[in-house]
Amino acid sequence: MFVNCVYVHVKQEYLPEFIEITRKNHEGSRKEPGNLRFDVLQQFDDPTKFLLYEVWDTEEAAAAHKNTPHYQEWKTAVEGWMESPRKGVKHRVICPSDRSKW
Amino acid sequence: MFVNCVYVHVKQEYLPEFIEITRKNHEGSRKEPGNLRFDVLQQFDDPTKFLLYEVWDTEEAAAAHKNTPHYQEWKTAVEGWMESPRKGVKHRVICPSDRSKW
Repeated sequence: MFVNCVYVHVKQEYLPEFIEITRKNHEGSRKEPGNLRFDVLQQFDDPTKFLLYEVWDTEEAAAAHKNTPHYQEWKTAVEGWMESPRKGVKHRVICPSDRSKW
Repeated sequence: MFVNCVYVHVKQEYLPEFIEITRKNHEGSRKEPGNLRFDVLQQFDDPTKFLLYEVWDTEEAAAAHKNTPHYQEWKTAVEGWMESPRKGVKHRVICPSDRSKW
């Protein structure tokens, strides 16, 4: 199990479209068997910045996500909407250590 | 409901102590009525960097946390262990919008 934090900086003019397609990506991703969370957050002091908090069971599950229609659609759609390249930061879990709490 | 991401950069020599006291802070925080999550994560490519993913029901709940013994103990203990000042980034929740999914 690991957590991938994806930091996304969106051009102001594409905020509504970005939120809509990211909701769709959230809905699809939560149905993937190896996905435990897919929180979508918007920074309070800068609404053009988002955090996708993705929790995956295995490397394979995270890799499989990249081949899903909802991810592919999201990736293609947001390509021109980024203010800067998005950045993923991978983490290991310290707490909660109990798998059932995820 | 909102999410506070706290980024902590710890001096290499204090990693075990930091992890131990942060586990205690996690346990105490999860018992607070206004806390929904308190994930503790360690960055894969730099184990001196941590993310505390704190989800709070209200501003009041987050403020009350600062007065708890587990937070006070954590704050005092980690003071000399930081490589740089820690940084909190506040977010509003886009997904999941259903409160029961938190």
